[in-house]
Amino acid sequence: MILLTNDDGIYAPGLWALYRELRQLGEVSVVAPESEQSAVGHAISLITPLRVKKVSLDGGVQGWAVSGTPADCVKIALSELLPEPPQMVVSGLNLGPNVGINVLYSGTVSAATEASILGVRAMAVSLNSYKDEADFAAAARLARETVARLRSWPGWKNGVCLNINLPALPPDRVLGLKFTRQDVGPLVEHFERRVDPREHVYYWLAEINERRPPDPETDYGALAAGFISITPIHHDLTDYRTLEALKIHKWE
Amino acid sequence: MILLTNDDGIYAPGLWALYRELRQLGEVSVVAPESEQSAVGHAISLITPLRVKKVSLDGGVQGWAVSGTPADCVKIALSELLPEPPQMVVSGLNLGPNVGINVLYSGTVSAATEASILGVRAMAVSLNSYKDEADFAAAARLARETVARLRSWPGWKNGVCLNINLPALPPDRVLGLKFTRQDVGPLVEHFERRVDPREHVYYWLAEINERRPPDPETDYGALAAGFISITPIHHDLTDYRTLEALKIHKWE
Repeated sequence: MILLTNDDGIYAPGLWALYRELRQLGEVSVVAPESEQSAVGHAISLITPLRVKKVSLDGGVQGWAVSGTPADCVKIALSELLPEPPQMVVSGLNLGPNVGINVLYSGTVSAATEASILGVRAMAVSLNSYKDEADFAAAARLARETVARLRSWPGWKNGVCLNINLPALPPDRVLGLKFTRQDVGPLVEHFERRVDPREHVYYWLAEINERRPPDPETDYGALAAGFISITPIHHDLTDYRTLEALKIHKWE
Repeated sequence: MILLTNDDGIYAPGLWALYRELRQLGEVSVVAPESEQSAVGHAISLITPLRVKKVSLDGGVQGWAVSGTPADCVKIALSELLPEPPQMVVSGLNLGPNVGINVLYSGTVSAATEASILGVRAMAVSLNSYKDEADFAAAARLARETVARLRSWPGWKNGVCLNINLPALPPDRVLGLKFTRQDVGPLVEHFERRVDPREHVYYWLAEINERRPPDPETDYGALAAGFISITPIHHDLTDYRTLEALKIHKWE
């Protein structure tokens, strides 16, 4: 059984487009946030409890709507809702890419990371388009083909998940799979300062543009070039080179 | 100037205990969430705007309260609120340790990570106690001494921040600094199923216990043994060993 989740919420069309495709690979259970959870990062709910609602969607399909984050959904699905552990967790299809620094802010990716922490193979799937009218059916087909190719890879290590980004291109213009590293370059961003009708100031994080010419070996660059970018990610944040340097340094 | 932030909110006693100590190292500006933001992970606010309020605290000290997450606080401090870039960002003093897998869920750590993404040296400081009556003054003194020892380390690489965890012990029982890697072992956790007064079910993520005997080379183990744990962390989530294996594999 495949557990399908996302961060755009259980009513998001991207999730259901992906559901219809993944059904061709086997049984699919849906456990997703009841409302949009974009840019929640790897948040979990500690202070508030979780509520779970069974919902009927997409022509009678049952899913669980959870009052929490994508990571919450994976945790509670595995420990409470599913009758058995899933063979795989898929998170998506996200509207908007999750590449570079944005991977850290991504609820879509955090669901896959949470699954890999809990010992389940997982993939996050995002589409390189912010348009609500994006061709989800075509993207979901591409996602299914990609998931099907990768899921039985014998080299898959425990604790690693795959961050998949799909170009928003017609199938014949997609250049194929490219295995990439996460781009770590800084973003260019700024806050827009605005004044509300009661003359209070507020700030809005405004468009984020990447600064440098894209490197095709990174997730950002490969996606921009028209590849399906596949980045293996893990949850050990240790910078080992710095750790060695800190250990060698003579501290007074 | 040092930028001080946290995830327990601008009114948290841990922040002000640390403020009083860091003042001995130089000027300190406080920009912190207006309410508690624990376990928000590396979340940022995209859907809602940020509001910023000047507050007077701790005998007249001015700070900025931000209606967002710790990462939001760092972003808006650097781009809008501070007259010049800080020499350093310190996040804490957090009530409760941030070691092992919990680093991923930590708002305290995410503020430091955000700073290092933006090119500023940063440290997250957490105390190994969940008790509201913890000895913040003693812990903050230990934190200041640790920050002072580390802040001018010549080997500090751009994009790396330090995750510092302090034991909740009397100063003479603290064993000193230990440079550690992040523990990546799984947590043991479960959900408590409860029924509310209206007979609706809700779930609460219950106590998280670590499974294995602590390894003193990890953040978790060093802290348990009585050391001040210092883990250098970065924001490149790529698993390079898996990346090489994926590239070598013959894909059909």
